[in-house]
Parts: sequence; structure tokens; C-alpha cells
Amino acid sequence: MSRGAQTRETIVQEAVRAASVQGFAGLTIGSLAAQLKMSKSGLFAHFGSKEALQEAVLQDVVNRFMAAVWTPALRSARGRPRLEHLFRNWLDWMMQNPDLPGGCPLVAAATEMDDKPGPLRDRLVAMQHEWMAMLARAAELGVREGHFRDDLDCQQFAFELNGITLSLTFHLRLLHDSSARQRSEAAFRDLLERAAAH
Amino acid sequence: MSRGAQTRETIVQEAVRAASVQGFAGLTIGSLAAQLKMSKSGLFAHFGSKEALQEAVLQDVVNRFMAAVWTPALRSARGRPRLEHLFRNWLDWMMQNPDLPGGCPLVAAATEMDDKPGPLRDRLVAMQHEWMAMLARAAELGVREGHFRDDLDCQQFAFELNGITLSLTFHLRLLHDSSARQRSEAAFRDLLERAAAH
Repeated sequence: MSRGAQTRETIVQEAVRAASVQGFAGLTIGSLAAQLKMSKSGLFAHFGSKEALQEAVLQDVVNRFMAAVWTPALRSARGRPRLEHLFRNWLDWMMQNPDLPGGCPLVAAATEMDDKPGPLRDRLVAMQHEWMAMLARAAELGVREGHFRDDLDCQQFAFELNGITLSLTFHLRLLHDSSARQRSEAAFRDLLERAAAH
Repeated sequence: MSRGAQTRETIVQEAVRAASVQGFAGLTIGSLAAQLKMSKSGLFAHFGSKEALQEAVLQDVVNRFMAAVWTPALRSARGRPRLEHLFRNWLDWMMQNPDLPGGCPLVAAATEMDDKPGPLRDRLVAMQHEWMAMLARAAELGVREGHFRDDLDCQQFAFELNGITLSLTFHLRLLHDSSARQRSEAAFRDLLERAAAH
């Protein structure tokens, strides 16, 4: 990596931490420059605008999410085993991630940006649509493999799976509920059980 | 109502609308004064600080929520009918509320405040703990009435019920998914079915 690419990487990493705690709205070139003890003009050289910085952070978080949650699950067999692997990774991503001291920035971004039209919202929505489609397709593979029943509504499955992780975030990060992971696992086992071919 | 109380009510109502769209962080005496075409000193006379204003808004939203979602459901018979009534009200609150153009401020507040220690977070957490306990007790009444099975985990029921409404917000407000209400209703019917005494 060139020195410039390394600096950019350092900035994005710190910005991801900041977005995890404060959300995307708190992500300004000024606050980040202060945090990193860099000049604002130095940061501008890398990103040019607050919006470009926020888009870089969003893309970086999605890349990390895919590398941590999705890609390793592809090593498990299609259908139920892959979904189980994916769900374990997803919980780990939300709960045991030293780079995200304030939890997953994508969850906070959903409510933060839902009423803020613009390119950042459009990117987030496109990414989340794609993620919902990936979850539904993963469930479809479960139908094809014979793990799940033929009439399973795979989009409903994805909707409920997403709800479990949103509820986890709520109970874990807001309520500091020590049973949050256990509750999420129970809800997921039940979701699989309901989907199962009998 | 005295003139002072009326003015206070007008301010809180506008502040609730603002919190619905921008979240609590965007709720400042300055921005609200501009919105209402009042002087900042006029607003200060009513609230004294940004924090006092935010607490008044939080309390007001919770009062409205209880009046719209909880209280009318008490007219339905204990157990399953009351939970069905409550859920309908909850969806209406999130979807058909002209006072909340940006959706329920309590959902956004959960991720906005999870990493912001302070009295506002403490109030929100206390209220949400109470709400979770109310949902679990409503499910317990279903067990006592013989609608639900004896070994139902009522806290798990509350956890999953909350997850359905979080997923609704996500799919409705971020993804503009027109099937969001229908998906939430299907998930809820299934939750009741799994809880049912057979």
C-alpha cells in the first residue's frame, strides 16, 4: 500500500469507529481531523467533502460486513447449514466487534437516514435491498435442498430474520439485556423449525 | 388551559414532529424557535434547556403512544384478543400518524441514544423496560386465560413481538416496502399461533 492509501485506510477505520458510536450525522471532516490529530486540509485531500467521507465509510462497513458475515458462511453447505453459519457470524458481528464499539452502524443508519433523501440514503437502501434478496435466496436454497418446505415464503423468512437482529441490537445496546443473544438464538431456531420440511 | 400551557403544548407538538423526522439530536431550542417563528428567549422561558425540552418531548411521545396503543386495547378481553387489538393499534401508530411524519421517534431514539449516557437515555431505557414488561404481562394473561400454552416463555414472546415492529419500521421507512404491514401481520399471526394452547 502506498503512503496515501495507508493514510486513507487509517482515516476510514477511525471514521467507522466514530459512526458506530455517533452515527453518520456526527461524521464531519472537522471532528475526525481533531480525533486523528490531522489537519482538516489533510483530510480534505483524501475525501473532498463530508458526503464523500460518509459514502466511503458506508461502503467500508458493508465490505467488512460481507467479509465477516456472508463470505465465511459460503463454506457451509447450502440451505440450513449455511443459514445457521451466517446467523452465528451476524450475531458475532453485532456483539463481538472491537472495531465497532457502538454496534453496527448500518442499524443506526437505517433510522438516521430514513427521512434524509440523498445519495447516501440511496446507497444504503440499495445495499439493504440487496441484503434482503441475498437472505431470501439463501432460504430458497434451503427449499431446493429439501431442508425447508416447498411453500416457504422466503421473503417473509428474510423479513423475520432481519427483525431478530434488529431486536438483538435494541435489547443489547439500549437495554443492556444480558439474555439478548440467547433470545435471538431461540427466535432463530424457531424460525428454522417453522421453515423445516416435515 | 392557560395561555402559557397552550404555548407549551404548541411547542411540544412541533418538537415531536421535528423529533420524528430528525431524531432527538436535531432538537435544539434554536432550530425549534426558527420553526415556530418564536424568540429563543420565549422558548427558554418554557423549557430552560435543550435537555429539558428533549425530556418533555420524550415524555409526550410516550403519553401519546400509551393513549393510542395501550389504553384502547384494555377494552378488549384479556389474553389473545387484547394482544391482537394492541398490535393493530401499534401498526396504526407507526403507519398512520399525521403527527409523526418521520415515524415513531422512540424507534429512532433507541439507536440514537444507545451510546449517549445521561438522563435522557436513562428515561428512555426505563420506559422501554416497562413496555417490555407490559407486553410480557399481556402474554401471561393469555396463558392464564387458557389461550396460550402453559410453558410459553412470555419474555421471549415480548422480544419477538418488539422485533416485528422494528422490522416494520425498517422495511416501511427505509426500504419503502409496500408489503411491510402485511409481512408484520403474518409474523404476528404466526407468533400467536406458536403461543397457542392446542
